[in-house]
Amino acid sequence: MSKKEGYIGVFDSGIGGLTVAGSIMKSLPKENIIYFGDTAHLPYGTKSEKQIREYAVNDVLFLSQFDLKALVIACNTADSVARHALEEKFDMPIYGVIKPASIKAARVTRNNRIGIMATTATVRSDAYPRTIHRYSEEAEVFQLACPLLVPLVENGRFSKDDIVVRTVLKEYLDQLTAHGIDTLVLGCTHYPLLMDAISSLVPDLTIISSSEAAAETLRRGLQELDLLNESEGGKRKYFVSDAPEHFHENAVLFLGEDAADEAELAEV
Amino acid sequence: MSKKEGYIGVFDSGIGGLTVAGSIMKSLPKENIIYFGDTAHLPYGTKSEKQIREYAVNDVLFLSQFDLKALVIACNTADSVARHALEEKFDMPIYGVIKPASIKAARVTRNNRIGIMATTATVRSDAYPRTIHRYSEEAEVFQLACPLLVPLVENGRFSKDDIVVRTVLKEYLDQLTAHGIDTLVLGCTHYPLLMDAISSLVPDLTIISSSEAAAETLRRGLQELDLLNESEGGKRKYFVSDAPEHFHENAVLFLGEDAADEAELAEV
Repeated sequence: MSKKEGYIGVFDSGIGGLTVAGSIMKSLPKENIIYFGDTAHLPYGTKSEKQIREYAVNDVLFLSQFDLKALVIACNTADSVARHALEEKFDMPIYGVIKPASIKAARVTRNNRIGIMATTATVRSDAYPRTIHRYSEEAEVFQLACPLLVPLVENGRFSKDDIVVRTVLKEYLDQLTAHGIDTLVLGCTHYPLLMDAISSLVPDLTIISSSEAAAETLRRGLQELDLLNESEGGKRKYFVSDAPEHFHENAVLFLGEDAADEAELAEV
Repeated sequence: MSKKEGYIGVFDSGIGGLTVAGSIMKSLPKENIIYFGDTAHLPYGTKSEKQIREYAVNDVLFLSQFDLKALVIACNTADSVARHALEEKFDMPIYGVIKPASIKAARVTRNNRIGIMATTATVRSDAYPRTIHRYSEEAEVFQLACPLLVPLVENGRFSKDDIVVRTVLKEYLDQLTAHGIDTLVLGCTHYPLLMDAISSLVPDLTIISSSEAAAETLRRGLQELDLLNESEGGKRKYFVSDAPEHFHENAVLFLGEDAADEAELAEV
């Protein structure tokens, strides 16, 4: 087996990272992918940095049992807090979500006012403002922790017609639009499911999904390293650290019926 | 130090158990209390039974470092799933929330139709129906997993005037009242904060808080064992396994400003 046929390891605290995996599958259908959701410890977004780093290292230790050619941190919280720890410990190309979304935001904003919706831990880490300022010195970045969005999405509430979704989103979005932003980063891999609801509330904003941005950056990165899989491929393995049946239910929402049916689930 | 002056150890996955601790402090102000919130692993309610049992045993191992005279499982999920494991491993009087609330429900219902609101794990365990049937053979028990209530409460949303709270609660309550219940058990220690909102939606139901029921049963139990503290006492210690600052913010909601100010927080 050539290195190109190796797996892309993708991990998240739970199911949110499936929006990243889904974007990768769409953009790179031949790649072999192993997904690990650390459902025993979700959510990461409300935990301390030390704890999140420990979990992230363990997640990658698990994935390292397989023949990996690259790693994707499919969780904004883990990417913002644990990236350095992972780069020090693991010797492989590591891709994330924050840098791709930051570069894209810095590129598309016209008035240099960028809003970030993310988890408490991602906001506390300041990873988005720091990264965006590396690509645009003049950008002003306004971040907001939105801790209710993950539970809403995980409970299947993301429809734009749901008064609960609209009320919670409107409260969050009002705080960001008050700053006159023209670009909004969905800085959590759960949030792409809220895309319709968000864009119906703020139709004038350019909305950037960190999940899609991550898949684009991964594709360019693998191309550059000459690591794109050229054989048939398309293998997918899914692992979770707790309650696979619950994962399966939700995976249908995140990946769509077909993809989720392929899921081979195992408790680790 | 006499045995009566020993601590009552109270644990929960996070802050919900503070409603139990608060009820104990009100009913037994002289007791010395150590509270442990396993915030590194919250929430328990969506995890598997095996995982919850492991966490619960570790929680009590931590509390066992102190001089305990009794233990209170201040979490319906842990009580429903891990009680036997704790009784096998630890040699002290263990009190919970499910039995007290079940006995009270069986006693007060007039039409023998009892509704239970609880977490996914508590519902899956069937602990409430099994326990209630031990005290009332003819009772019909209708349970409903309400996974959005814990995140709402933890985000400070429990006002009866909040459209989000009312909408989510109404959807849950409609499913239970459809069965013609006359008694409703709040089978999660977070839910007492929703008491006003719930009773405004279902004013005709008798509502039982598992937190208050637990404190009443503990008082009677300690009395029976002649273990009530007679000296000055009233010491309180609070520990959490992650993010004490976040715990402190929320403790104010659960215990009231004064009590929370006394909190001595430590990461373990």
